[in-house]
Amino acid sequence: MELMAESTRYSIGVDLGGTNLRAAAITADGRELGKIGGFTNLKEGRDAVIEDMVRAIRSLRDQFGGEALAGVGVAVPGFIDIKKGLVVGSNNLPQFEGFPVRDDISARLGKPVILENDANAAAMGEKWLGAGRDVNDLVLLTLGTGIGGGIIMDGRILHGMVGMAGEFGHMTVFPDGNPCGCGNDGCLEKHASATAISAMARLLQLGENLSARKVFEIATGDGENAEKARHIFTSMGRALGIALANLINVFNAPLYLLSGGPLPAWELFAPAMLGEVERRSFTFRNARTRIEPAVLGNEAGLYGAACLPFLGPPEPAPAFF
Amino acid sequence: MELMAESTRYSIGVDLGGTNLRAAAITADGRELGKIGGFTNLKEGRDAVIEDMVRAIRSLRDQFGGEALAGVGVAVPGFIDIKKGLVVGSNNLPQFEGFPVRDDISARLGKPVILENDANAAAMGEKWLGAGRDVNDLVLLTLGTGIGGGIIMDGRILHGMVGMAGEFGHMTVFPDGNPCGCGNDGCLEKHASATAISAMARLLQLGENLSARKVFEIATGDGENAEKARHIFTSMGRALGIALANLINVFNAPLYLLSGGPLPAWELFAPAMLGEVERRSFTFRNARTRIEPAVLGNEAGLYGAACLPFLGPPEPAPAFF
Repeated sequence: MELMAESTRYSIGVDLGGTNLRAAAITADGRELGKIGGFTNLKEGRDAVIEDMVRAIRSLRDQFGGEALAGVGVAVPGFIDIKKGLVVGSNNLPQFEGFPVRDDISARLGKPVILENDANAAAMGEKWLGAGRDVNDLVLLTLGTGIGGGIIMDGRILHGMVGMAGEFGHMTVFPDGNPCGCGNDGCLEKHASATAISAMARLLQLGENLSARKVFEIATGDGENAEKARHIFTSMGRALGIALANLINVFNAPLYLLSGGPLPAWELFAPAMLGEVERRSFTFRNARTRIEPAVLGNEAGLYGAACLPFLGPPEPAPAFF
Repeated sequence: MELMAESTRYSIGVDLGGTNLRAAAITADGRELGKIGGFTNLKEGRDAVIEDMVRAIRSLRDQFGGEALAGVGVAVPGFIDIKKGLVVGSNNLPQFEGFPVRDDISARLGKPVILENDANAAAMGEKWLGAGRDVNDLVLLTLGTGIGGGIIMDGRILHGMVGMAGEFGHMTVFPDGNPCGCGNDGCLEKHASATAISAMARLLQLGENLSARKVFEIATGDGENAEKARHIFTSMGRALGIALANLINVFNAPLYLLSGGPLPAWELFAPAMLGEVERRSFTFRNARTRIEPAVLGNEAGLYGAACLPFLGPPEPAPAFF
C-alpha cells in the first residue's frame, strides 16, 4: 500500500488567468490525474476568486488523497515577489496586487503553496513535459496581447531581483520603432505580438480590429490582400529574429520556444525570423540551437505550476561567498 | 600549525592574455600573497607559453606551499569548452585552439586546474573581490577591441551550451547599423568598443588611428574638435544604453558593470547611456538597478581565475528531472 501511495505522489497546479481558472492534479511522473476548469469570476471580487481556487484544489485533493499531495503551484499573470509570495503587479488581476496569495491559500489548505509568474510556469511546463524535456536550459517567448517570457537555467526558473527577468516584450528591436506604453520606442511586443499584428493590419488598411487569427486567414487565403497580410508576418518575423538573435548571443541556450495565438502562422513568420537569427548570431551558426514552437499550448502554465512543488528549494549561491 | 595552514589556504589564478601572462596566489579570504607577471611569448610557440605558465605557477606554489594550494584557475581570451577543458576558439591565442590546456597543466602540476574565459573570470573576480561583492547576480561588459561579457547568476558563471553565453558585443543595437565581421549589421561592438571610438574619430576626421584614450583627451581638451569628440562618446553611450536596457529587461539583475579602456570616459558616455536605459527599461525604473564601472581593472580576470578552485563543482539541475 505504501509503495502504491508513493507511486501516485502528485501535486496540484493552478493556472489563474484573467479569463480562466484551471487546476490539475499531476503525478510526479507527469500523468494528469484530473483537471477542473472554469471562469475567473473577477466581477465577484478577489475573495470569490480565491474561494473558487481553493475549492478546485480541495476537490482534486479529496479525489486523489491529501497524503500523496506534494504541494500546490499557482501560476498568475503578473510580477511575483517570490520570497514574499505576493503578486506585485498585474494588468490582468489588479485586485491581487499586494495580496499574500501564497500564504493565504497555504493556510487554508495546510499544504505548501508556490506562487509563480505564468510565463515562467509555462517555460517550466515545457521543460518538464513539453518541447524542453531533453534540455536543462531553455528560453520561452509567449506571444499574446503583449510578449512575455520565461527563462529556465539548469532546470530552474531565472527570476531576477524582483521577479522581472524575462521581460522580452520590452526588448528594443528597432531603436526608433513603434511607440510603447512603457515609454520606449521599438519594443518587441509593438512589432511582434498578436496586438502588433492587428495594428499592422490596420496600417495596411486590411480592416479594423482584425485578430491575428483573421490576419493569418487573409494571408493564407487567395484574396487580394493575401500578399499584404503575408508582409505583416514577415515584419513580425524580422522583429522576433532580432530579439531571438540577441537572446541566443546572451544565453547560448540549446532551445528557444515560442508560444501563443500567432503560432499557427509559424510558416509565415519563421523564414524571416530564422533569416535574421542566422545573420545576427554567429552563436546560432556555431552552436546547435533549436528554435521551435512550444508544444503544450494552454497546458504549459498549468503543468509548470504543478511541477514547482516537486523541485525543492532553489540552490543557494556557493557557500564560499 | 594546522590552523595556520588552513588560514593560508590559497589558490593560484593565471591570466593568459595575448600580450601579458600573469599569475597570482590569493588566499580564500581574498588576500594577494604574491604575483608574477611577464609577456606572453607567443613567438616562441604554444609549448613555450605553457612552460612559462607552469613555471610561474610552480614558483608561487613553492613559495606558499603545495599543501595549502586549493587549485589553479586559468583565464584565457576565447571560447572554452568547460567540460573538456579546451580552448575551442581564440582570436588572440589561435595556437591554443583545440589544445587540452586544462589537463596538460593539471598533469604537470598534480593539482586540479579550471579553464575559463577571461571575461567570465573578470565577472567572477568583480563578484568575489570587486564591485559585486554584495550581490550574487551581475552582468559585466568588457569594452576593448571588441566587447565581451560575463554573467554571474547565483554566484556562478553562466556558460551556455558551448561556453558562448555573454556574447554581448554581437547583440544587435541598430538593426541597420555598422557592418560587423560576424556577418551582422549594428553589433554593439561596432558602435561602442574602443575600436568603434577610433572608427568614429576617423569618420569625423579627427585623425587616423586615434586610440580611444586620445579621443577622450580631445573630448576633454579645449581644442576645436572637442565637441565632435564628445559626440563620439554620446553615440557610444546610446549604443551601450540600448544593449544594457535589453540586458536589464532580460536578467533583472541588481548590478551591471562596465570595464575596459574607454572607462575613463565614463562621464562623457554615461549620461547618454543612462538616458537610453531609463527610457528603454521599465525594469530599470522599477527595480533598484546599479550600472557602474568595474573596480578591479586588469586584476579582475586574475582574481576571478583564482576564485574558481574555491567554488566547488556546479550544482546540477534538480534531481527531480
